[in-house]
Amino acid sequence: MSVTAEEIMATYEDLAKLEAEFDNVETETIRYQYKISKDLYVKRAEVIAKINDFWPLVFEQAPMDIDEHIQPADSAVLLGAIKDFKVERFEIDNPVEGGDPRSVSFRFEFNENDHFEDKVLEKKFWWRHGKDGSIGYCSEPVEIKWKEGKDLTNGLLSLAKAAFDEQKAAPKKEGKEKKELGKAAAALKKKMEDHEGEVSFFAWFGFVGDYVTAEENAEVVAKKKTGVEFPLEDAEMADGGDDEDDEDWEDEEDLEIFPVGDDVAMALADDLWPNALKYFTHAQEEEGLSDVEYESGDEEEEEDGEGAAAKPKQKKHKKACAHGCEH
Amino acid sequence: MSVTAEEIMATYEDLAKLEAEFDNVETETIRYQYKISKDLYVKRAEVIAKINDFWPLVFEQAPMDIDEHIQPADSAVLLGAIKDFKVERFEIDNPVEGGDPRSVSFRFEFNENDHFEDKVLEKKFWWRHGKDGSIGYCSEPVEIKWKEGKDLTNGLLSLAKAAFDEQKAAPKKEGKEKKELGKAAAALKKKMEDHEGEVSFFAWFGFVGDYVTAEENAEVVAKKKTGVEFPLEDAEMADGGDDEDDEDWEDEEDLEIFPVGDDVAMALADDLWPNALKYFTHAQEEEGLSDVEYESGDEEEEEDGEGAAAKPKQKKHKKACAHGCEH
Repeated sequence: MSVTAEEIMATYEDLAKLEAEFDNVETETIRYQYKISKDLYVKRAEVIAKINDFWPLVFEQAPMDIDEHIQPADSAVLLGAIKDFKVERFEIDNPVEGGDPRSVSFRFEFNENDHFEDKVLEKKFWWRHGKDGSIGYCSEPVEIKWKEGKDLTNGLLSLAKAAFDEQKAAPKKEGKEKKELGKAAAALKKKMEDHEGEVSFFAWFGFVGDYVTAEENAEVVAKKKTGVEFPLEDAEMADGGDDEDDEDWEDEEDLEIFPVGDDVAMALADDLWPNALKYFTHAQEEEGLSDVEYESGDEEEEEDGEGAAAKPKQKKHKKACAHGCEH
Repeated sequence: MSVTAEEIMATYEDLAKLEAEFDNVETETIRYQYKISKDLYVKRAEVIAKINDFWPLVFEQAPMDIDEHIQPADSAVLLGAIKDFKVERFEIDNPVEGGDPRSVSFRFEFNENDHFEDKVLEKKFWWRHGKDGSIGYCSEPVEIKWKEGKDLTNGLLSLAKAAFDEQKAAPKKEGKEKKELGKAAAALKKKMEDHEGEVSFFAWFGFVGDYVTAEENAEVVAKKKTGVEFPLEDAEMADGGDDEDDEDWEDEEDLEIFPVGDDVAMALADDLWPNALKYFTHAQEEEGLSDVEYESGDEEEEEDGEGAAAKPKQKKHKKACAHGCEH
């Protein structure tokens, strides 16, 4: 089939329009689901507050996308000290200019533990549109007050924070100069090169991504609504073409201490959080008897197996896991 | 905190009710999304019909959950001969008793190819509730008319179909007898033990899962609506307890030629299908110039780089991939 250049252009324009419409469907669906499930999440929080070890058991059963990043040393504190966990779509409830229902925050509450002083760690992921045409999650590094000699990230997280602050404070540079690394960024680069072994789950708190400010995002979203396309052809040309751009981008990527941080955020928000009850049930099935039951100290349980009635009704549930897979 | 057995029971009952309510939210959300995106999918089909190699390029960029099952030998036919692909929520449009919006069908249309005679392969996954408390996808094996010596599954698929038909035709057996394998099942078991190397993607057409008939599902769904809980305690006891059950279950699992078939179905339905435009855009970016452009034969393109204007506007899109990851 032979097609003209005009036909190709028209087809690509149709595709771009369709993509925008599919994007609207996605955000509308998130808003709808949020609306019909909001009260249910409040009820769930009330019930799980009565269950010891709810979140430790859920994180123990975390889907692979999350679990593969939890190192043995992380388990002790993440599974041992997590007290509460909360996910919020913070730009639905508090609309901001250019805000998106996909923007999501994670609040971890911890018990007193050997590794850090913080009782709460909270990280936000903003869904933002960049002038260069990029769309996706970005975040800011969150510091952890490690106890002496207990930094599970081996200094990576605090350097990621320092490098981010340094870059934010620095005046915008143009052209070649862009590629010179600041002091903190250089130290981070070296630390990353020297780092041996697996990276701690807690390095996730250092994820930045393709950083877009709230102002830039608001500007791009407003222009997109009027039909302006991004990236602007002129901006692209002025920038010296694709090759140079790619190098900048690779530089940024080089300083990402937890490159798949946005994937982990999505797995936490779209899987672990909505399916927490299923993961908990699955954990119960694996353990046979839950900690809660052990603690009840009801002697009848031992007598004739009646204690089993306290277990969840659904047994063996091949598909109990939200992924339909076996852990 | 010390809790009584009654309190534990009450908490588990609350959890079970919450799980049911979360399940309702999920199905309502699927219905809503289906409603607001139905026309859009029709429009998309019209646009992509104009693009050569749309589906081959999308499958080439398939998310890891799918891609890891596409063996080199599969690529030639799957990516080389796929002409059209369609996903339908067939129990939304054609409601049946106990039907679920999660039930999904996959229709692959192929060009003439070296491996099989079929022009269309269609596989259905039903979301069903079993009397034993199981909930999840099940399916029926779909045969492929392989050309002489071209069976990519090396006989596994046709034996899976034969074993399924055999089991369906056999009268329901009780107790110990259950464990005797039929002739086809025994042949399948042997074939699976002898099979060397990776299993073809086409073995996915043989996935069965925890098979629940339409009648059993309708009965369980109807009873659940009246508040009856599954599994029934009596049924469990009559069955001789958990251990024996587990063995049965393992036997079934042993004869599954593509154990993660339901995961792949979910990845196709919930990721590849809704995000097909993103995967296509991503493929375009990777290839620089698409086949369509090569075929247009417009000489102007070569002259001064204007041909690039026919490429999608969004370049480099770090998050263009629906997973936010790099392939």
